[in-house]
Amino acid sequence: MGKEKVAIIGSGNWGSAIAKIAGNNVKNHNDIFDESKVPIWVFEEDYEGRKLTEIINTDHENKKYLPDVKLPENVVAIPDIVEAVKGATALVFVMPHQFLSKTLEQLEGKVEKGAKAITLIKGVGVEGENIHVFADVIQEKLGISTSALSGANIANEVAIDRFSETTIGYRTEEDGKLWQKLFQTPNFRVQLIDDVAGVSLCGALKNIVAVAAGFIDGLEYGNNSKAAIMRLGLLEMKHFCIEFFDNVKEESFLQESAGVADVITSCLGGRNRKCAEAFVKEKKPFDQLEKDMLKGQKLQGIHTAKDIHIFLKSRNRIDAYPLFDKVYQISWEGLPVEKLTEGL
Amino acid sequence: MGKEKVAIIGSGNWGSAIAKIAGNNVKNHNDIFDESKVPIWVFEEDYEGRKLTEIINTDHENKKYLPDVKLPENVVAIPDIVEAVKGATALVFVMPHQFLSKTLEQLEGKVEKGAKAITLIKGVGVEGENIHVFADVIQEKLGISTSALSGANIANEVAIDRFSETTIGYRTEEDGKLWQKLFQTPNFRVQLIDDVAGVSLCGALKNIVAVAAGFIDGLEYGNNSKAAIMRLGLLEMKHFCIEFFDNVKEESFLQESAGVADVITSCLGGRNRKCAEAFVKEKKPFDQLEKDMLKGQKLQGIHTAKDIHIFLKSRNRIDAYPLFDKVYQISWEGLPVEKLTEGL
Repeated sequence: MGKEKVAIIGSGNWGSAIAKIAGNNVKNHNDIFDESKVPIWVFEEDYEGRKLTEIINTDHENKKYLPDVKLPENVVAIPDIVEAVKGATALVFVMPHQFLSKTLEQLEGKVEKGAKAITLIKGVGVEGENIHVFADVIQEKLGISTSALSGANIANEVAIDRFSETTIGYRTEEDGKLWQKLFQTPNFRVQLIDDVAGVSLCGALKNIVAVAAGFIDGLEYGNNSKAAIMRLGLLEMKHFCIEFFDNVKEESFLQESAGVADVITSCLGGRNRKCAEAFVKEKKPFDQLEKDMLKGQKLQGIHTAKDIHIFLKSRNRIDAYPLFDKVYQISWEGLPVEKLTEGL
Repeated sequence: MGKEKVAIIGSGNWGSAIAKIAGNNVKNHNDIFDESKVPIWVFEEDYEGRKLTEIINTDHENKKYLPDVKLPENVVAIPDIVEAVKGATALVFVMPHQFLSKTLEQLEGKVEKGAKAITLIKGVGVEGENIHVFADVIQEKLGISTSALSGANIANEVAIDRFSETTIGYRTEEDGKLWQKLFQTPNFRVQLIDDVAGVSLCGALKNIVAVAAGFIDGLEYGNNSKAAIMRLGLLEMKHFCIEFFDNVKEESFLQESAGVADVITSCLGGRNRKCAEAFVKEKKPFDQLEKDMLKGQKLQGIHTAKDIHIFLKSRNRIDAYPLFDKVYQISWEGLPVEKLTEGL
């Protein structure tokens, strides 16, 4: 058997941070991985008058999305996605979720037989009464075993080697161990759990909880209330996933970095918390705050709350998730924010 | 059967906050409780030239320990402990733990037959290789069924009716329901669980975790690291209690206000976190910080860490609790704080 060839699909802030780790780890485990090259697919753009791929390949730094962090020299930027994955047996998906579907179209039929994948993409796909996690989408579309990684992982902190943890929900134990070898470092601890759906959903649903925590901050209710909201949010996340997905494990939510720890991180810092606080204090609508605070990007928490609302409504299950519903009502339907804790 | 007569033993910040709730709730549930009087035992002292009992009974406010919060008029301060509990069938213990043993001596043989108790006292009793929770101490000494209440409850926030939650670990389901009636309000939500030891231990061990979180804040490692430490701490709390106590429930730690939510609150605010941060940033020893920041009071987290260290050492089990041990080593043995995350 040949060595595993890694390719990274996506080169934003998180993609670049993870490329740094992967580039180093293929050298640390060169019995398993081909250490010569870790291609990273880069959506080509100009930055300060140069092409981003050229910057990465010459300066070994993604100056646009992860400045001041050196990437290992075996991380090679490639603008053509099909070329980037050519021969790869271990594909790492790490891109904004809205680009996934087009990317998969380009990759269909181009991926090595027997390859496997892992997704670090945050979010969940909801279309009316159907809901799916991206690991399943990738697995189905490309016909390859696909795991998921999520955790309390602020990219910039991981990139400078601050102590942190993450969770891999694996498809097979063998896959799990391979991905752990690719990502684990002394300061980036990887736990494994047999729960792709749970780990994936944590990364999406925690943003709703972070919006609720931001409301509490805006109301200045204090840490008791905030902790109560986080606890209730974590339990709704767990119930939701157990109700609508098979083989989800409680531990993913209650004991793993992807669950409890990521809820904590997102409710302490993070854009969802921050914008929700501003929504209360500045009394501006969210579309205005997205322009002012996020350069026009979407605030994930409120959009996920809307998706989940539509989904739950189609299933006639809104009442079972009062916190999710309150976040939706306050964000989209004009419910006064003071009603947040009522009847929870 | 007569109505339940409540007595509150202790009148500090938390005792006064809970007396406000109890005084109102005996009126709301006057089919079960005697609403005419809720005696609160007050350790008599002078405050601004008046006796504290007189202040409480005249102004209906504990001006020393919970200023600006009105107490219901049926809350009556009594300086003599035996008189305070006379005829009482529902005893609420809420005092600093170092006073418990003397208090119990005074109460022995003086308590109504068939009475029951609940303890809100934080902490755990460790004597070398023996460890016990205060609910068991009270139950044994007074021969009455004793439950425990703990949660993410900053007294001042509860006192002004901010939304929060708490957990009662009950001795019998009937006891649990009685205590829930005494304490629950629309904004102070009481969950019940059949786990006196787990609920009690949460309130003690979370302070060790809060010290660790404060170290991370002092080191400025960021929210990823802090969330990771909180997660690891919560799991050590759970493992510790399951290893050394019978019939402890995982949910007390992972799902209840007493567990995950109180860890969150204590790691966001709270004196343990704050002093530990100062320990790192100001490079002062803890005994100095106790003088400077706590008016000479003991910092619970580091003393609990020491007690637990002695206990674990006697059982030869230190290695199984690396985070607790790191907090002990850094606080008491001069281990550099940068070693905190090493090998966790």
